[in-house]
Amino acid sequence: MVCIERLAGLCPPDDVVSPLLVCSVLSLPYSPVIYLDFNRTTPMAPSVVEAMKPYWLTHFMLPGQEHPHAQAVAEALENAREGVAILAGCEPFEVVFTGGGTEANNLGILGGVDRSERGHVLVSTLEHDSVLGATAHLAELGWEVESVPCDSNGLVDPESLGRAIRSTTRLACVQLANPVLGTIQPVREIADICHSRGVSLHCDATQAFGKMPVDVTELRADTVSVSAHKFYGPKGSGALYVRRGLSLRPISFGEPREMGLRPGAENIPGCIGLGAAASLAGRCAGDVAASIGDLRDHFAYGLLSSLGDRARILCLDSPRLPNTIAIEMPGDAKRIQRAARQLAIATAQSDTPPDETTRALRAIGMSGAQVGRTIRLSLGWTSSRDQVDRAIELLADASDAASAA
Amino acid sequence: MVCIERLAGLCPPDDVVSPLLVCSVLSLPYSPVIYLDFNRTTPMAPSVVEAMKPYWLTHFMLPGQEHPHAQAVAEALENAREGVAILAGCEPFEVVFTGGGTEANNLGILGGVDRSERGHVLVSTLEHDSVLGATAHLAELGWEVESVPCDSNGLVDPESLGRAIRSTTRLACVQLANPVLGTIQPVREIADICHSRGVSLHCDATQAFGKMPVDVTELRADTVSVSAHKFYGPKGSGALYVRRGLSLRPISFGEPREMGLRPGAENIPGCIGLGAAASLAGRCAGDVAASIGDLRDHFAYGLLSSLGDRARILCLDSPRLPNTIAIEMPGDAKRIQRAARQLAIATAQSDTPPDETTRALRAIGMSGAQVGRTIRLSLGWTSSRDQVDRAIELLADASDAASAA
Repeated sequence: MVCIERLAGLCPPDDVVSPLLVCSVLSLPYSPVIYLDFNRTTPMAPSVVEAMKPYWLTHFMLPGQEHPHAQAVAEALENAREGVAILAGCEPFEVVFTGGGTEANNLGILGGVDRSERGHVLVSTLEHDSVLGATAHLAELGWEVESVPCDSNGLVDPESLGRAIRSTTRLACVQLANPVLGTIQPVREIADICHSRGVSLHCDATQAFGKMPVDVTELRADTVSVSAHKFYGPKGSGALYVRRGLSLRPISFGEPREMGLRPGAENIPGCIGLGAAASLAGRCAGDVAASIGDLRDHFAYGLLSSLGDRARILCLDSPRLPNTIAIEMPGDAKRIQRAARQLAIATAQSDTPPDETTRALRAIGMSGAQVGRTIRLSLGWTSSRDQVDRAIELLADASDAASAA
Repeated sequence: MVCIERLAGLCPPDDVVSPLLVCSVLSLPYSPVIYLDFNRTTPMAPSVVEAMKPYWLTHFMLPGQEHPHAQAVAEALENAREGVAILAGCEPFEVVFTGGGTEANNLGILGGVDRSERGHVLVSTLEHDSVLGATAHLAELGWEVESVPCDSNGLVDPESLGRAIRSTTRLACVQLANPVLGTIQPVREIADICHSRGVSLHCDATQAFGKMPVDVTELRADTVSVSAHKFYGPKGSGALYVRRGLSLRPISFGEPREMGLRPGAENIPGCIGLGAAASLAGRCAGDVAASIGDLRDHFAYGLLSSLGDRARILCLDSPRLPNTIAIEMPGDAKRIQRAARQLAIATAQSDTPPDETTRALRAIGMSGAQVGRTIRLSLGWTSSRDQVDRAIELLADASDAASAA
């Protein structure tokens, strides 16, 4: 594994400090936690913390204040915006800072339509709660919201989506990558179909940035969401790419900031942190994706050889994020999770209302029993082969115990 | 002055480090900046940064993750909520964390009414842009929005507000303290009048917390906004007090968090920072308010004795924040500001659309020329007598130069 902090010049070479940096910090007295839930949230990269530091106590002014120090802050904010723009492949003026991915999705969807209209919206079944929540709000306002299914490989078919478009369709929402299955949607083809029919496309790409190259210009979506805490940036910070020329409405109100799309005092340290995380991801993501992909494969095949044909990796043949494994294995997943406490992993939590994991697994046609046997694993920049080997042992043991119970 | 960081146990006694801590950090090579704009934003207190630190790299999980470490984070979040509740004088379950004061005002107002209705709303002319923005949005949706004026002392008259209430009035919005004039509104009396007529009251108290005791139960407003960066907490973090039993609607959508009122991954470090800032303010605000009040008076009388009867402190006889001075003085305020570059102070920026300072000064009946001669000063926990004495000299010199020009 490439140690990202070393690339960022913030920690000594591998032979002095291992890539277990985060996990050693996380250690309990007797059992260091092996964190395998990077798609939920990541620790901040030390270099991101360092980048934010000057803006807490020293450069604490807001860009709107009438002092040269404030102008320096304004410049730092624009540099951070440029960092996000470079990672996303767009122009800085197409980047709107938000308070996170959820707000970016709400702004892209609720700000992307005229809410007083009563149009038709298409939403893939794999979407995040914030996308489903925003479209459910449109439904409350009288909009028709139609689900677009995915196939058993976790992929949305562009042609099927195209067939669902009506004359009243205003917006389609399709994510770039799924946090549970890891599947990557053909967003470019979907965008082309949408645009040929005069429909806008909102793409939640929060799970993709930092894990794979994302070029929003090539994606051709009209709005694209970014969440800093998904790639080693601060929580409470995100951005929305807004294609130049697209007319968007703000969803909250106040002193005009961020091209009139997001009011309120700027969270300067949060924006700087996102910019720093974006620069780090841009610099390191290629190397990291390759090595994480190798480690993911080692993990998957290790699990399969320990568990035999009683286990199954989901959506194995689909284009997938390099860090993600969803695996159906023998035994109750929650029981496995409890038995393998040294691992931080994710399982389906609730059927009514279904959580994100349950929804994704149901969307590919799994039964309730299958959902209850599935574990969601995601690797990160600090994941190591030692951790993965230990995780294979622990999961195999816990699965044996749980399936024997 | 009480050095708040010393009270918080984070810096050595006064004889080692002076309360000029922040300003020395801010120093330019030859001229340390004297920061007199604490009502716009504050630096973070070092103890707040320390409180947030563990949640960036170590305890980075989200409360919703299925691991004991995540439960520890959930507990820390609830402790932070309790810190805010203690400062505000309410129960923890009445505190909803938001992304800042602007979001809190939007949630209190837009979440406090049924937007599909077409009711009547009362708004004082002294309100923040986010309050005026949210009510302007209601006006776009067909609501009748009526301004409630203040008198020349910067005070809203509860009786006049009561007379403006109609059978269709659903909400009134009156701030607790004004950032420009410092005037403190009779919110309790206004709340009693509103409630006797079946009208809810939203109170933006973002300028009051950390500067004066605020007990929301005594205020009797239904919703009250808090902004962390106004009292040495992090930017991008705030809260809304929601009176128990009040039914509020979320204004953005997603995975239900914060009692269903605010979706999305919690900004854990931001919430912890707000909680820490609230605890610090609760511990120190009494002492600080008294000493800042003395310093403010020293500042005001120093300015008046330097400038003579050509200067005038606004709203001198009204109940006011202990840290705030708005002063009309000879010479163009922007010219004074440019001449006294060592000071970070605020002036009116624009008449169309009017900024916060212009609006407040216009609201008390000042002419355009008077607005253009007015400077807004606000002291903070690190302000010192030396700074104030130097500011008096600089302002008097700049005023002489500007009025001679």
